[in-house]
Amino acid sequence: MLLYDAPRAPNPRRVRIFLAEKGVDLPTREVDLMALEHMESDYARINPLRAVPALVLDDGSVLTESVAICRYIEWLHPDPPLFGRGVREQAFVEMWQRRMEFALFLPVAFAFRHSHPRMAVLERPQFPDFAEAQRSRAVEAMRYLDVELSDRAFVSGDAFTIADITAYVALELTKLARIGIPEDLPNLARWRASIGARPSVAL
Amino acid sequence: MLLYDAPRAPNPRRVRIFLAEKGVDLPTREVDLMALEHMESDYARINPLRAVPALVLDDGSVLTESVAICRYIEWLHPDPPLFGRGVREQAFVEMWQRRMEFALFLPVAFAFRHSHPRMAVLERPQFPDFAEAQRSRAVEAMRYLDVELSDRAFVSGDAFTIADITAYVALELTKLARIGIPEDLPNLARWRASIGARPSVAL
Repeated sequence: MLLYDAPRAPNPRRVRIFLAEKGVDLPTREVDLMALEHMESDYARINPLRAVPALVLDDGSVLTESVAICRYIEWLHPDPPLFGRGVREQAFVEMWQRRMEFALFLPVAFAFRHSHPRMAVLERPQFPDFAEAQRSRAVEAMRYLDVELSDRAFVSGDAFTIADITAYVALELTKLARIGIPEDLPNLARWRASIGARPSVAL
Repeated sequence: MLLYDAPRAPNPRRVRIFLAEKGVDLPTREVDLMALEHMESDYARINPLRAVPALVLDDGSVLTESVAICRYIEWLHPDPPLFGRGVREQAFVEMWQRRMEFALFLPVAFAFRHSHPRMAVLERPQFPDFAEAQRSRAVEAMRYLDVELSDRAFVSGDAFTIADITAYVALELTKLARIGIPEDLPNLARWRASIGARPSVAL
């Protein structure tokens, strides 16, 4: 297998954290997003939708979409389970992963893409007013998550899962998206510190 | 189980098509989105994120997010498999479901939410210019899908899956989103007609 990776982008980071939690090491090839290498025809043959990461399987087929790649890795390396144990728990992990993706990750990513000068070449045109509205959405999601985290250690329950990865990577992107994380969210802060201390995240 | 449903909204529709394909009948309760019933405190106790659908399990816990609900139903009723057969196929179904969601469904939904007068009360403020840009994205995704469908019957391969449901429901929303489906996309048109003829969709 070969993983097309981009060191500073949020989606490849989700996959890297996931792999590190699994203790799985994959050969990688770096795609230079700032040089727009993913917009060139060579990469379009890997992923016509031009997104990174992409995982080339041993039979040459290409699996894209971070969460699909992670789930495939989960099947190859079931321990520790990062998509939940058993059917019921897996359903709720998927719910939380998607809640974090749509309520938090997406607003933060949109705020970044529609306001950061470096994104002007990719997001054409940018809509700064839309970015600003997304900032409020993201903060709303943080307040909601803070309440949820009042009675448990992780986003989806008492175990670290893909939902924590999605939420954590979203918060990491807040700086570039110019979103302030409110200081009156103690559960969110405690959770964030505990995730940030994991070796997989420190890498 | 009890399914909180909304007849005209796209996400509940995904779940209804999925259930019909499975031949599963669930008791449902209708949430009146136009009356903003989902924004009231009663519904917030069901889903704090105020989205429909939501599935109340027999132990009282609430599962939200259409795709998580569908995957849970898949586990309860494995046949016919709508998330793929076997690990490898399942990974690619998830990839296609997500590609359809992010490249097609989301731009169409954003175009609708940010331009339709009926959405003004929910999407505050609306950004009509952003909506317009999303229309081009959606059409781009349709052109891409047309190429992909040149060599196969369904979005993810030779079997109907959740990826077809997501793509089909997105196309159904194009009218309200004021997005014209280009007429020079024969594979997309053929696929759309074949999906539209399924009893699950006609319901």
